[in-house]
Amino acid sequence: MTMKKMNMVIAQSGGPSMVINESLVGAVLEARQSTKVGRILGARHGILGILGNDYIDLRKPSVKKLEAIAETPSSALGSCRKKPTADDCRAIFEAFRARDVGYFFYIGGNDSADAARIVAEEAEKAGYPLVVYHIPKTIDNDLRSCDHTPGFGSAARFVASAIKGDDLDNRALGGVKIDVIMGRDAGFLTAAAALARVREDDGPHLIYLPEVPFSEATFVKDVQAVMKKRGRCVIAVSEGIRGKDGVPIGAKLGSGETDSHGNVQMSGTGALGDALAKILKEKAAVKRVRADTFGYLQRSFPGIASKVDQAEARAAGAAAVKAALKGELTKGTIAIVRENAKKYKVAFAPVPIQNAAKFTRSVPKEYIARNGHDVTPAFIAYAKPIVGELPACEIF
Amino acid sequence: MTMKKMNMVIAQSGGPSMVINESLVGAVLEARQSTKVGRILGARHGILGILGNDYIDLRKPSVKKLEAIAETPSSALGSCRKKPTADDCRAIFEAFRARDVGYFFYIGGNDSADAARIVAEEAEKAGYPLVVYHIPKTIDNDLRSCDHTPGFGSAARFVASAIKGDDLDNRALGGVKIDVIMGRDAGFLTAAAALARVREDDGPHLIYLPEVPFSEATFVKDVQAVMKKRGRCVIAVSEGIRGKDGVPIGAKLGSGETDSHGNVQMSGTGALGDALAKILKEKAAVKRVRADTFGYLQRSFPGIASKVDQAEARAAGAAAVKAALKGELTKGTIAIVRENAKKYKVAFAPVPIQNAAKFTRSVPKEYIARNGHDVTPAFIAYAKPIVGELPACEIF
Repeated sequence: MTMKKMNMVIAQSGGPSMVINESLVGAVLEARQSTKVGRILGARHGILGILGNDYIDLRKPSVKKLEAIAETPSSALGSCRKKPTADDCRAIFEAFRARDVGYFFYIGGNDSADAARIVAEEAEKAGYPLVVYHIPKTIDNDLRSCDHTPGFGSAARFVASAIKGDDLDNRALGGVKIDVIMGRDAGFLTAAAALARVREDDGPHLIYLPEVPFSEATFVKDVQAVMKKRGRCVIAVSEGIRGKDGVPIGAKLGSGETDSHGNVQMSGTGALGDALAKILKEKAAVKRVRADTFGYLQRSFPGIASKVDQAEARAAGAAAVKAALKGELTKGTIAIVRENAKKYKVAFAPVPIQNAAKFTRSVPKEYIARNGHDVTPAFIAYAKPIVGELPACEIF
Repeated sequence: MTMKKMNMVIAQSGGPSMVINESLVGAVLEARQSTKVGRILGARHGILGILGNDYIDLRKPSVKKLEAIAETPSSALGSCRKKPTADDCRAIFEAFRARDVGYFFYIGGNDSADAARIVAEEAEKAGYPLVVYHIPKTIDNDLRSCDHTPGFGSAARFVASAIKGDDLDNRALGGVKIDVIMGRDAGFLTAAAALARVREDDGPHLIYLPEVPFSEATFVKDVQAVMKKRGRCVIAVSEGIRGKDGVPIGAKLGSGETDSHGNVQMSGTGALGDALAKILKEKAAVKRVRADTFGYLQRSFPGIASKVDQAEARAAGAAAVKAALKGELTKGTIAIVRENAKKYKVAFAPVPIQNAAKFTRSVPKEYIARNGHDVTPAFIAYAKPIVGELPACEIF
């Protein structure tokens, strides 16, 4: 067999992050160095761009332009939340065949990995030769295939910084402050609020994760105890907290809107924070209660990304292209493995795509404090190197 | 009269900002250089600290510690929202007499200036010799005495950065995004969202200020027009928008909680954003609508302050102490005057305290676009030097 150059398609899918463009640029620059890759096509808005024949020629932009895009938050190619049907897949292979596409890279979270897995399996069934690689990305940090995911470190840096500033604000004016943090099923991002602490009395004083069943009565008691001890209280709470019935409380309050993967809308509304504030005013007799929902800023705020996260996102993109060109696995994702517990170091390893697809992981038990409203020192040790140094804040 | 050294009290009041500690440190370092000042006392939580005899000795901290505090958001001495009564004032003078306090500095917005004015006038009536200076601070930028206020530039930098990132996020996933921005009566901070724009199609595409009566029907039409033209829409809306009846819409939805200056709670709830999102889903038939309320992060996020704002806040604090020690005005505030419209330069001038007290200013007409949902180039020219450069963002 002569080595024929094959063209590649790359796209982004799911919720954007501050560093998803690092992965895109990492992949593109790696592909540009290879003699095996012909055209490098960026599909706009994920598989919608493939289905709609909407591509960008990624050989054209200068390295300077690509580097500037790498530093820019959100998905520069556009995104989508679409689960491909068998019909979609047939249309995709037709479009790929017309363009001699032999490599397909999809940057995203578990749903995007699942979309890529479907494409890969359908290609196999259809006898269309296609190497498919998922490139990990999610601020939720919930891929089973990764020690931690690109995007998490930067979102966590936003959250910990915001909580740090908010804790100072709460010191000044007192009362209870509730901050609602993203994370549909996994509480990693909410847990990262704990990185804000330096002093013994620093907030967050209470942390509620989706992994621990939420009880209104316990919540009220927890807050009353902190108010008694500190005279103030900063609370980090996940948008995904759920009662014993397992139903997310925010979803009950929300619009009921769902995407094609079946995910209920939780972000982009202040309903959960407001509901929790109401509980405290009525049942904990706290006079000043404020609630903020950090919302989309957690994944899109420019200029504050974690440097480690940026570098790893870049490396994950490059690793996927390297692995695809080697051809060991034809349906792969890049696992991020922490190599050394003492000195922070990671490796990027190709593993089967199903390791990342569909099912997510939760915050493991050893990271959740026994009291149910905090994290453990093990979590801090885990998250700190990914998030990096936070702005120093001094008090009298 | 022999020059007797007099002691000074300084305190912080009202909503914190990212640079209010710069003003504190500016005043303290200036006072430390003077032979006229004896003790430098920081009252905790504004006049509550004076009434409660709760002081910090501000001669003690090292310059290094003070510099670190200057860089830290929120009010390091703590804050309060208290309008002093005549009885409070008598108690204050008693406390001041016992400590030989001849200078009183109060850092805050219009309500804090009014509180300082009351203290100053009551001191005069009571025959207690006291030089009172208000030091301007408010993220709302609504003091009549200042071209712009310390705290505004940094909050505006947060807002413009957040909108910039959010606009990229909206490019990726489409639909309508509503961002609710602080500003009870004045729309300056919401207007600053416009600084996010670089390209012709960049958001925010619609800007709603409290200065323009808000109409639901016009809002729906505005959004539909942008959706038709752009296929997406980013909206910056002030928490203080009000209908033709002049009643803030957010206040109608909120808790009805008020402070002792009569201000109704608006921040710390997502109700306004959620209500606007509901309108668009129901009446503009937009499928994907998300609303974020930027909340307290606008005044407390660490590490992103505007350098110009930091330097001016510092200078305003120092200017107040200089003016007080000169003794030209015994009841003063520091006006910030823009000296040259071409090359950005400001001066700090002592003016009567009533110039800052109580009544606020609104966004002037020449900064509001005729269409009622945007700002003018004159506003951009006004705000840009105060806010400084934003993180560069590149797109394909």
